[in-house]
Amino acid sequence: MLHKVFNFCAGPAAMPREVMYKAQQEFRNYQGTQVSLLEMSHRSNLFDEVIKKAEANVRFLMDIPDDYGVFFIQGGASFQFAMLAMNLLPPIGKADYIDTGRWSQKAIEQAELIGKVNVIASGKDVGYTAIPEVDDMIIDPGAAYLHFTSNNTVYGTQFHEFPDYGNNVPLVCDMSSDIMSREVDVEKFAMIYAGLQKNLGPSGMSLVIMRPDMIEKSYRVLPDLLKYSTYDHNHNLYNTPNSFAVYMLSLVTEWIREQGGVGIVERINDVKSEILYEEIDKSEGFYNGFAFAPDRSRMNVCFNLPTQELNQKFISEAAEKGMVGLAGHRSVGGIRASIYNAMPLKGVSRLIDFMSEFKKHNS
Amino acid sequence: MLHKVFNFCAGPAAMPREVMYKAQQEFRNYQGTQVSLLEMSHRSNLFDEVIKKAEANVRFLMDIPDDYGVFFIQGGASFQFAMLAMNLLPPIGKADYIDTGRWSQKAIEQAELIGKVNVIASGKDVGYTAIPEVDDMIIDPGAAYLHFTSNNTVYGTQFHEFPDYGNNVPLVCDMSSDIMSREVDVEKFAMIYAGLQKNLGPSGMSLVIMRPDMIEKSYRVLPDLLKYSTYDHNHNLYNTPNSFAVYMLSLVTEWIREQGGVGIVERINDVKSEILYEEIDKSEGFYNGFAFAPDRSRMNVCFNLPTQELNQKFISEAAEKGMVGLAGHRSVGGIRASIYNAMPLKGVSRLIDFMSEFKKHNS
Repeated sequence: MLHKVFNFCAGPAAMPREVMYKAQQEFRNYQGTQVSLLEMSHRSNLFDEVIKKAEANVRFLMDIPDDYGVFFIQGGASFQFAMLAMNLLPPIGKADYIDTGRWSQKAIEQAELIGKVNVIASGKDVGYTAIPEVDDMIIDPGAAYLHFTSNNTVYGTQFHEFPDYGNNVPLVCDMSSDIMSREVDVEKFAMIYAGLQKNLGPSGMSLVIMRPDMIEKSYRVLPDLLKYSTYDHNHNLYNTPNSFAVYMLSLVTEWIREQGGVGIVERINDVKSEILYEEIDKSEGFYNGFAFAPDRSRMNVCFNLPTQELNQKFISEAAEKGMVGLAGHRSVGGIRASIYNAMPLKGVSRLIDFMSEFKKHNS
Repeated sequence: MLHKVFNFCAGPAAMPREVMYKAQQEFRNYQGTQVSLLEMSHRSNLFDEVIKKAEANVRFLMDIPDDYGVFFIQGGASFQFAMLAMNLLPPIGKADYIDTGRWSQKAIEQAELIGKVNVIASGKDVGYTAIPEVDDMIIDPGAAYLHFTSNNTVYGTQFHEFPDYGNNVPLVCDMSSDIMSREVDVEKFAMIYAGLQKNLGPSGMSLVIMRPDMIEKSYRVLPDLLKYSTYDHNHNLYNTPNSFAVYMLSLVTEWIREQGGVGIVERINDVKSEILYEEIDKSEGFYNGFAFAPDRSRMNVCFNLPTQELNQKFISEAAEKGMVGLAGHRSVGGIRASIYNAMPLKGVSRLIDFMSEFKKHNS
């Protein structure tokens, strides 16, 4: 029999085992109906329960103020890059963006197709190994919003302190890769969004959380599905949603509740990342962390071995031992261990054991 | 033990049993990897095989010319209503639309937010019980395109003859509810699109088929994900696709190939709808078909019983006997039996037996 496999893929990423098991069990027979939930009308009572539960779980877990909107929108974060700018970036006016690498750049590129963008800080000079100092940023109080990416999967960097300008500038944050991995004060944000496929479910949908004054702020004549207000007015059922993604989100959020909530999950995530970084730091340069230590991500641990050959050897030997998805992003190479909520501590422990053994045999 | 259930839901609709079985079997362990396909990178070799297979199957089954684009776009047909107009409807100029009811109206509404729309024919006067006569339509040779909905799920009407103006006016067709249910000459169309959730898979994605000259015809500066050319240039992998929907599409299209292809499936669909309409017509007014007979849909068979009470009784007794999803659309009521590709002949036979018995006991 094969060992259990631990999947360190950056996304689409591993979902909790219990969730995958339950989804498989009821795949063809939802709640004894002999019919799959995927084959039911999105206006059926059973699906209505699922979508309401997904929303209620999200609201509970993130302690979202009642007047905020919680939207389920087809397409991932890349689609939100465009949609948020189409809604929130005025034809006259501009938005501030922080550039922390690949995904924030893509958000900037899409917004530039819509309106005027001002990049107020960038990690480019240091190869995105660090997060720009929040205190050094000069923001424009006239900016429509300030956009940033809370966690950067490619480089393994993460904001541990958020920009905060009170109510002067609405904060818009792409939390795709660390949503619900740590407690966040939602009230400080005008908009939070995340593609599901890292911490919340399969690909194909985004979760969008929006302050009420932002929802109707559509500066352009837009088709219904490109306006946030449509999702608000129709409780996410203007048209057929991605039912599978909604369902999986309901199961994943239920699982987080069962773990004890985001605060408890955060503590486990701290332990997982701490022990992994400790293994890197004690290796005396055999494992080289990519990110500036104070900005290290708790979700994506990126490091390099002394040579390309060793990187490759590490990846393939780890795979043989049931640890897969460890190759770094194609733009930076090296090793990337993605340890989202669904990665159990024992997966990280096994990786650390392997790292220790591998170093012994190869240094 | 429960009887097997036959699901007549209009959409999200039943998928082939063999497909659902296979998807369940490999849900947590794709091809022996011990990892779900949903937890793998969309840039992995295994997912690449799946997306290539889905495209190849679509091309094979519909005999699509090599130079046409085949795109997998997140969001359903409602999203395409907007996207196609944003791309294909020039700021100066207009498009012709045929109004055959609810879904074509929605397509019209979204296009009107983008540009000028001319409704050249409508079934409104007859309560959408019939398709406007194609021969009577006066089309504008200067129209950017002519849009129509090939099958109307709400009323159970279907185009059996398509508008055809040669190359003068590009035909754009929403085939969401009858794609791959019958053979269609793709070369006659500039664009065909369909949300998956009726004949092709789960909700959350559309299949778009596009003539090469239309692909680059973006009349506006648009974000990347709103341009068809982005899907073309990046082989549907500009960003993370809806992996589950792509996978299910690959399985459903494989299943259609195993049945013998679209031509064979069409013959079975003809038999299924013919025997059902025969049962209606021989009932001497107990069952009243909604649609004008020559325009009857082969996919959605809509009818009424003499009273609302009998409609309700029919729906609940059928459900007790394992035939579910028979309620008509909320806007018209009555009975609707949706008999897409995945509905086996024996499901229709069981419904006919039930109709015959029900009439005996209630007339």
